[in-house]
Amino acid sequence: MITLEELPLRADLVGQEPYGAPQLDVPVVLNVNENPYPPSPAVRREMADAVVAAAGTLNRYPDREALALRSDLAAYLGHGLAAEQIWAANGSNEVMAHLLTAFGGPGRKVLAFTPTYSMYPEYARNTCTEYVTAPRRADFTLDAASVQDAVREHEPTVLIIATPNNPTGTVTDPDVIDEICAGTDAIVVVDEAYQEFADTPSALSLLPRHPRLVVSRTMSKAFALAGGRVGYLAAAPAIVDACRIVRLPYHLSAQTQAVARVALAHADELLAQVRSLAAEARAFEQWARGRGFEVIDSQANFTLFGRFPDRHRVWQALLDRGILIRETGPDGFLRVSAGTPQEMAALRAALDDINPLEASSR
Amino acid sequence: MITLEELPLRADLVGQEPYGAPQLDVPVVLNVNENPYPPSPAVRREMADAVVAAAGTLNRYPDREALALRSDLAAYLGHGLAAEQIWAANGSNEVMAHLLTAFGGPGRKVLAFTPTYSMYPEYARNTCTEYVTAPRRADFTLDAASVQDAVREHEPTVLIIATPNNPTGTVTDPDVIDEICAGTDAIVVVDEAYQEFADTPSALSLLPRHPRLVVSRTMSKAFALAGGRVGYLAAAPAIVDACRIVRLPYHLSAQTQAVARVALAHADELLAQVRSLAAEARAFEQWARGRGFEVIDSQANFTLFGRFPDRHRVWQALLDRGILIRETGPDGFLRVSAGTPQEMAALRAALDDINPLEASSR
Repeated sequence: MITLEELPLRADLVGQEPYGAPQLDVPVVLNVNENPYPPSPAVRREMADAVVAAAGTLNRYPDREALALRSDLAAYLGHGLAAEQIWAANGSNEVMAHLLTAFGGPGRKVLAFTPTYSMYPEYARNTCTEYVTAPRRADFTLDAASVQDAVREHEPTVLIIATPNNPTGTVTDPDVIDEICAGTDAIVVVDEAYQEFADTPSALSLLPRHPRLVVSRTMSKAFALAGGRVGYLAAAPAIVDACRIVRLPYHLSAQTQAVARVALAHADELLAQVRSLAAEARAFEQWARGRGFEVIDSQANFTLFGRFPDRHRVWQALLDRGILIRETGPDGFLRVSAGTPQEMAALRAALDDINPLEASSR
Repeated sequence: MITLEELPLRADLVGQEPYGAPQLDVPVVLNVNENPYPPSPAVRREMADAVVAAAGTLNRYPDREALALRSDLAAYLGHGLAAEQIWAANGSNEVMAHLLTAFGGPGRKVLAFTPTYSMYPEYARNTCTEYVTAPRRADFTLDAASVQDAVREHEPTVLIIATPNNPTGTVTDPDVIDEICAGTDAIVVVDEAYQEFADTPSALSLLPRHPRLVVSRTMSKAFALAGGRVGYLAAAPAIVDACRIVRLPYHLSAQTQAVARVALAHADELLAQVRSLAAEARAFEQWARGRGFEVIDSQANFTLFGRFPDRHRVWQALLDRGILIRETGPDGFLRVSAGTPQEMAALRAALDDINPLEASSR
């Protein structure tokens, strides 16, 4: 049987592993920032009806431009946006891949601010774009001056700012984004995957002022639609046109367009848990600070906390108690998603049980 | 409003247009090789039930490995294949993108044999792989010796052989593929998007002998599932592993995995029209030869025919009569998909009406 080593794999891929957190079947899953609340039976039934309708022409290619979906997404975002300012794809990671295929490539750089989302270097690698980073401040916030210094140093064609940032939950205020955009001709991608959970306003309001600004969103988190794989962006129509050049035709299936449109039609219901999940995360943070943990200020549906002398031991001890969280972020920290009240109670009890701030359990 | 010219688009993308045939709403659509028969109400209902079930956990990420689907695809293909030899994605174009991301890239070449599928250069462009071509013989067939000459000349890491070839419908016998594989260390991708319509055997039987052989398929055509966007490949597990490294995580949505599995469970019903569509295409070819057209030997559900002194006039004259076919392939030829008997009768009547072999209508 032939091995990967014998195949002409691209040199920079040799030794790489497929991306992804462990998929383990445990009672409490708090590792990938999913929303714990599934769609209601009524919404599921309506999704099924939409799929039956779409399946009536499933022998035909779907709408290549996904215009009805893009129009619904524009209406959801507001800010006077229209369909031609929206692009949608199979998850925000495909949106990012389209952006980096169009505006990155050999000899070009994408700049991100670490610690940040661990998929960014993978988007860069897949599109043959050089991934360069600059560190966030000690509290993981960003200021315009140091971003601009990094832009001058690296001269990227694209920079990515996640707000709330993953895995820290840190937000970047629109005023700071405004100043960053004003100082560069690079494409500035603001990744707002967790924006619905935040109190800080969206960068969407800056779009009229900054034609190279892209605001990226996903239906995975706030809409509780991780399985549906729908990500999208809002930007100038010319940026959408660039994505249209590099997208594979018919990239969004008929059933995905149908399911996403039903979810958007029921945005009120699907988004109903957003405030309670944010509150759950904030309550956990308060509890954790009370227990002596170091907790990063978050406005997302997750929390980065530590510092653990041996974080892998803590991760494993929680897993042994049926709780899966994420071993990611700076050394000594772990990331946990907001779950249901019951799940968070189980997490707190387990943490109280395992002496996580000790180097080993007694 | 900012224009595309003002944005830092990758240099080789400047001036490019989004790929795709015109999407026009006309009575007879024979331009993109779709299957004219939609799924039955019973299958559609079962797809809906599967989506309801999948939507029960739509708040969770889908199975990143799509193992149940890959297992079903392996069972459909037979030849003793197992899930770890199958890779699936959103259409065979995403499968091809994974292959060229893994085995192409800057400084590398992918070789194809023209005239052939017009998406191949786009896959190459998106993955920064150089696209090189060698011509097919005058009758659009391939022989191993000239393929090997082209491989020696260009030294590609990947070569693509479409059989039946698009847009010609020409097949390449497994014996020829066998000889080609024996003579190269390149990854040989045999694109069998239309294989179910062909009388010539599949290259799948060669997989045990040739570890660098990849056989690519789609559910779009024979399964009448173009809207469902499911493509797949069969190859050595190491080649699947290479695709797993470069795929974006969770690339296949829960609803797509669900819909595809229902289609596979009803393969008998969905494939029932394959023979009649092939027969419809062959009957059209016989008729066209009788009318004095030059017709390329096809084993697909489409026909390339000509030679038209002014093919655009013929394309437009058919469109004026409510029939959309495809202006593609060598100069002077047009490609038409097999439709229903009624659609093909309409096509024949329209062709009889418009003096297509004249430079202008009288």
